[in-house]
Amino acid sequence: MKNIALVLSYDGTNYNGWQVQKNGPSIQQSIETALFRLLGQQVRVSGVGRTDAGVHARRYVANFRAECTIPVNRLPYAVNSFLPEDIAVSAAAAVPDGFDARFDCTKKEYAYYIYPSALRDPFHARYAYRYNFPLDLKRMQEGAARFVGRQDFAAVRSQGTPVKSTVRTVFWCEVEPADELICIRVCGDGFLYNMVRAIAGTLIYVGGGKLTPDDISSILRAGKRGQAGPTLPACGLFLNRLWYDHTPALASFRLDV
Amino acid sequence: MKNIALVLSYDGTNYNGWQVQKNGPSIQQSIETALFRLLGQQVRVSGVGRTDAGVHARRYVANFRAECTIPVNRLPYAVNSFLPEDIAVSAAAAVPDGFDARFDCTKKEYAYYIYPSALRDPFHARYAYRYNFPLDLKRMQEGAARFVGRQDFAAVRSQGTPVKSTVRTVFWCEVEPADELICIRVCGDGFLYNMVRAIAGTLIYVGGGKLTPDDISSILRAGKRGQAGPTLPACGLFLNRLWYDHTPALASFRLDV
Repeated sequence: MKNIALVLSYDGTNYNGWQVQKNGPSIQQSIETALFRLLGQQVRVSGVGRTDAGVHARRYVANFRAECTIPVNRLPYAVNSFLPEDIAVSAAAAVPDGFDARFDCTKKEYAYYIYPSALRDPFHARYAYRYNFPLDLKRMQEGAARFVGRQDFAAVRSQGTPVKSTVRTVFWCEVEPADELICIRVCGDGFLYNMVRAIAGTLIYVGGGKLTPDDISSILRAGKRGQAGPTLPACGLFLNRLWYDHTPALASFRLDV
Repeated sequence: MKNIALVLSYDGTNYNGWQVQKNGPSIQQSIETALFRLLGQQVRVSGVGRTDAGVHARRYVANFRAECTIPVNRLPYAVNSFLPEDIAVSAAAAVPDGFDARFDCTKKEYAYYIYPSALRDPFHARYAYRYNFPLDLKRMQEGAARFVGRQDFAAVRSQGTPVKSTVRTVFWCEVEPADELICIRVCGDGFLYNMVRAIAGTLIYVGGGKLTPDDISSILRAGKRGQAGPTLPACGLFLNRLWYDHTPALASFRLDV
């Protein structure tokens, strides 16, 4: 029985998120089905996190335990032939028996893309949230800095599975132009439900003048969800980069570039 | 009765090409339906060219004649509300009565994207052709230059609607890296059926060593389709830029950037 980690990426548009769901296709289900067809074994795949319906992953790590005689460096080709076009495995590695894609991830970066335009663009429709009012990039950058640090993020999460604590560490939160889009990158040791989408919604309020950068600090202190900005749509959100600082087997896959 | 030009863009993945077809949805049909719902009139929309099933357009110009009381600069917003997410109008202008999107176009540029990789990437699947053997970019650039000029392009076209002449002028044919993709841009005064996809297939043969740059000149002289490279898949092809040198009404839309 080997413990194998897969590096994958997916366009989440057509999925009900990572986790197996009764009401529609999921990424996890697609991968478990592909592995069953390839290996003839029912395996359970654990992912680095439960991305929501419509959220994309530029990088994602999952692991599973199975009997596998296929050389591990050939696994991506083999698994891909059983996966649909919008999910792809780019690398695979044997990892220590105790490795878990979720618990061994030390840092994650999400990217949220905003397309500031009054008119639609069909090539951004699946991958960015269109916002048709002026946004002040410098104000958004000043606002973003307020999310950095070890803080209580209760004000920017949706109710979901209960959590012990709403304190998380955000290592950076940066806003920068990316061609005709605006990209918000948030890196943390963990994220609450819908946290990045609420941070992005709050930064849109700051960029549009409804809130000041200072307001963000007081909103986080008060911890009331209603004071922050809205939860933006899933399509703009990408799981972007991952860090596994204590797992040398994954070091060569450059998950952080 | 006004003659109105629309600038649009579309992701062609889910369409059977530009032209109204019996066997599936077309871009033209989608726009004619949107205009019917908006204006209450059956209109016929003429496009700059008949892109094939799966081909995309970053820029496309079409025109139609109709009674229209909506201010022309508001038309894009109005039409878009009746169009699916993968087609969008970005600009509209009243044009002289004799204007025709196809015949008044003086130059067109197509872009063909190749993703050189042994493994799939879900974000390139809709927009680039994946090729998993090594390609020599410099050789491809040398080969591309052989397509430039007023020449007979019979060797790089598929049989389609009969044409009077297979001579066309290619103003430039350039190969350059575009992030992790290779982009082939071909600009001409007109194109034969599947010409850009056959040029791209021939340049892949040159980049992979099956043909030399010199071979291209002799293949064009011989005019035999079988000597050139294959017609690459539609997904990598974009109608990219347009020139309407004699239509001042379209000058402000920057169709050539």
